[in-house]
Amino acid sequence: MTDTRPPEARPSPRRQETRARLLDAAAEVFVEEGLQGASVEAVCTRAGFTRGAFYSNFSSKEELFLAALAREYEQRTDELEQRVTELTPLLRDREGCLERAEVAEYVAEFFAPTDPETVWFVLETEFLLLAMRDPSLAPGFADFLTRSKNGLASMVEGVVGAAGRRFTIPVERAVPILGGVFERALRISALSGRDAPEGIDELGDRIAELIFAITEEA
Amino acid sequence: MTDTRPPEARPSPRRQETRARLLDAAAEVFVEEGLQGASVEAVCTRAGFTRGAFYSNFSSKEELFLAALAREYEQRTDELEQRVTELTPLLRDREGCLERAEVAEYVAEFFAPTDPETVWFVLETEFLLLAMRDPSLAPGFADFLTRSKNGLASMVEGVVGAAGRRFTIPVERAVPILGGVFERALRISALSGRDAPEGIDELGDRIAELIFAITEEA
Repeated sequence: MTDTRPPEARPSPRRQETRARLLDAAAEVFVEEGLQGASVEAVCTRAGFTRGAFYSNFSSKEELFLAALAREYEQRTDELEQRVTELTPLLRDREGCLERAEVAEYVAEFFAPTDPETVWFVLETEFLLLAMRDPSLAPGFADFLTRSKNGLASMVEGVVGAAGRRFTIPVERAVPILGGVFERALRISALSGRDAPEGIDELGDRIAELIFAITEEA
Repeated sequence: MTDTRPPEARPSPRRQETRARLLDAAAEVFVEEGLQGASVEAVCTRAGFTRGAFYSNFSSKEELFLAALAREYEQRTDELEQRVTELTPLLRDREGCLERAEVAEYVAEFFAPTDPETVWFVLETEFLLLAMRDPSLAPGFADFLTRSKNGLASMVEGVVGAAGRRFTIPVERAVPILGGVFERALRISALSGRDAPEGIDELGDRIAELIFAITEEA
């Protein structure tokens, strides 16, 4: 993402580099140890910084986690945007209506969650639990969830439009509903494997069915 | 629920009474202390039983939690069924089509989650996290989630039918999608209060909008 702040308000390149290294280390430690198991100490050791350097960038482990999660989402959104950019002309150029089976294939190919995404889903559930028990530990989490959903809305609307359809409910409400179906598949697969009924392997069919139900020919 | 086992396979009344008292105590202790904070010791003390009595009924804290959660769901389903039984003739007898605003009111009145349900939602998230990290700790949880959803499907289909509509996707798939919208509202409200945007106070409108999108006039 482009930094739109005026140059004098942006952190120095050295500070940005420190922050990026801390976030890299944090992502590894969180994935390995979980949110509760990960310590600021372990993140500093991994990144090769002192606790002083850490606390001049982040006020708490929770703030660090939210920054790491935000970066994870940004990277994922960038990848999704790239796939959507590839997909859009294919959808526009094809003749005739899109069949449900084709939509299911596209979803499975372009949007199915990877194993690292499953690990981040567990981490996010851990953070959600902490935030629900004590919202003061996770200021900004509710806003983050709303913003990250809004970022997807125009992309989803674009790809549905390229396929010659439009949502029958507002897209900003369709996106979290579709997100709920993703999340359910991730959850079931975390409990019972990718091929469990209603797990990740069925995601393409489930999403395609719902998309056809809440869109109409444009 | 009626016990359909032959009499000789049913636990003795005394055993059932012990189990019920342990589950009552467990519900209180889990709500007060959380899943991680609650101990078998504290549940035994609250119920007035020894650890021996506990372990002749449950093999672990996790098994106890799943039994307490199942009983919570059963009670909630019984209450829902009662409300649906009251609602069904009202829906059948009314003239003309049901408006979205009316559906929103019915949902808000009959289905909006109460504060204890919010507490159980946090507990269930805690259990889900434990189960995702180590599925062997929570055998039967994935099955439980599927069964509890199936129990709701015929009820939801009945009430939608009484309102003169039918689902355009299979009801067993519509129910988890509606469940996802409930869950999202619970989550947002746990983070930011009942009146937060997309929180519990908006649940009636959100569910009504989705129901109209995925049903048609019968």
